[in-house]
Amino acid sequence: MSIRVTFLGTGGSVPTSARSLPAVLVQRGNEQLMFDCGEGVQRQMIKAKAGFHKKLKVFISHMHGDHVLGLPGLLQTMALMDRQKKVDIYGPEGIRRFLEGTREVLQFALTFPLEIHEVFNDGKICEEEDYVVEAAWSNHVIPSLAYAFVEKPRPGKFFPVKARALGVPEGELWSVLQRGKKVTLPSGAVVEPDEVMGEQRRGRKIVYSGDTKPFEGFVRFAACADLLVHEATLDDALAEKAAEDGHSTPSQAAEAAVKAKAKKLVLTHVSARYADARVLLEQAQRVFRDTAVAEDFLQLELPLIDC
Amino acid sequence: MSIRVTFLGTGGSVPTSARSLPAVLVQRGNEQLMFDCGEGVQRQMIKAKAGFHKKLKVFISHMHGDHVLGLPGLLQTMALMDRQKKVDIYGPEGIRRFLEGTREVLQFALTFPLEIHEVFNDGKICEEEDYVVEAAWSNHVIPSLAYAFVEKPRPGKFFPVKARALGVPEGELWSVLQRGKKVTLPSGAVVEPDEVMGEQRRGRKIVYSGDTKPFEGFVRFAACADLLVHEATLDDALAEKAAEDGHSTPSQAAEAAVKAKAKKLVLTHVSARYADARVLLEQAQRVFRDTAVAEDFLQLELPLIDC
Repeated sequence: MSIRVTFLGTGGSVPTSARSLPAVLVQRGNEQLMFDCGEGVQRQMIKAKAGFHKKLKVFISHMHGDHVLGLPGLLQTMALMDRQKKVDIYGPEGIRRFLEGTREVLQFALTFPLEIHEVFNDGKICEEEDYVVEAAWSNHVIPSLAYAFVEKPRPGKFFPVKARALGVPEGELWSVLQRGKKVTLPSGAVVEPDEVMGEQRRGRKIVYSGDTKPFEGFVRFAACADLLVHEATLDDALAEKAAEDGHSTPSQAAEAAVKAKAKKLVLTHVSARYADARVLLEQAQRVFRDTAVAEDFLQLELPLIDC
Repeated sequence: MSIRVTFLGTGGSVPTSARSLPAVLVQRGNEQLMFDCGEGVQRQMIKAKAGFHKKLKVFISHMHGDHVLGLPGLLQTMALMDRQKKVDIYGPEGIRRFLEGTREVLQFALTFPLEIHEVFNDGKICEEEDYVVEAAWSNHVIPSLAYAFVEKPRPGKFFPVKARALGVPEGELWSVLQRGKKVTLPSGAVVEPDEVMGEQRRGRKIVYSGDTKPFEGFVRFAACADLLVHEATLDDALAEKAAEDGHSTPSQAAEAAVKAKAKKLVLTHVSARYADARVLLEQAQRVFRDTAVAEDFLQLELPLIDC
């Protein structure tokens, strides 16, 4: 199942003509997971042809306006488009009051179920058949969460040659083995899945830092991420201001990527002061080579992992 | 003093890749008056190079999300930019609860005074030295206001030849006459302003319909507008649906322009269904020739009137 990551907004705090406010959309098959939802998201989704009718979960890092003000308009537009599928929204305390207050005064009716999950404890906050989402308290100026999307391992590769050699007839029994269950042959012999299949294949992991300065535990949280999306609001020369404001620099993001053994790092939440973000890229790449600075509508594909 | 009108958002209900949500910015000298403030306004202002530090009044037509969800982000960005000048916001009941509720949960401090004026009675809602803004209850599905910006008349043209002929020496006494006050000459003779000046010159008038179907009293309210900005959400073929939804068609907007003897009509709040808005333009122009359909960033200049 393909995963496509689309950066819908890559600015920090205030937008620019080139950068909308923060939002990262992960499309996995027919499902969408969105990390933060800054003002303008609904229009960015239209421009990215993302669609408003897919299964959707939104994860809000913290209750600053630039990360959350796109939600009411997104929900209202989905209702105007007669969306039917449920929307799940996760975020720190305040997200419920914000959404319910806004809906009450703006009087818009929803055409779909909306479930708001306030996150009080870090750890696993959502589990589906084949993935989980975990949250970790980060270190910003208000309570803020980092999120990790983690696919569960897939069963190993199936070897027809081995199955035939063991006398398993092609058909339903192959499917049972492929789903990881043993089968009993007409002969009475039992065949275990690992006799005909390779090692489990690991799932993909995407980590989103939200707004934060470096914090204890993030490296473990982000361990072995295939994609680490990390904020880098200010460049290294402004490290002191970044720390005061609860933000990270490119070098700090890149150090986290190195220590976490991430495969790829994408910097985002770029301050409006950088009309040209090359300085951020260069500072990070000195520490971690496979780095990019996100631009609005940058798309990355994460292929299935075969090992 | 120049007036420049910039259409920051021209879509209706939902944005499109070409149209942001409703907002019309009137820049008059160093002052800004904004009519409606849909999601995305702050970014549209950046793209239009409108500036965030000018004197500003915002007039909200009604409390639907697509007309008001740009406000919190606009105020927050102005605060991040250390704005000092006051912002005045006018709108129907609910605007105060919306803004105060949003600010409370998103915890953003303002660096400037914010005054919220809930409009309960139509008529003159704001008066400055040289203009007034009037409101009229329109006819939408929730309480909604149309607004008229009306400059006060300017003094007539000053004729130096006439002043000299009457023995008024050039200098301070000329200025007094130009400000519309009589002067007494050293000889004891009194000169009245109308002896040395032409007729008062009328001010400019801009009328913004907000979301509405045609309503009793609008023609009088919009009388002699130099610019009538009127919604035309749906084309004439959908007149029945337009009426149900409390909206207008191009012909209805154009008929209002004819009856009000407006100088120019600009249609806005264009439904997302019109990728090409020519159908709206053609329907209106059959009734009122000087019509345009707004596009995002369309700018019009309204010169001073010399009669």
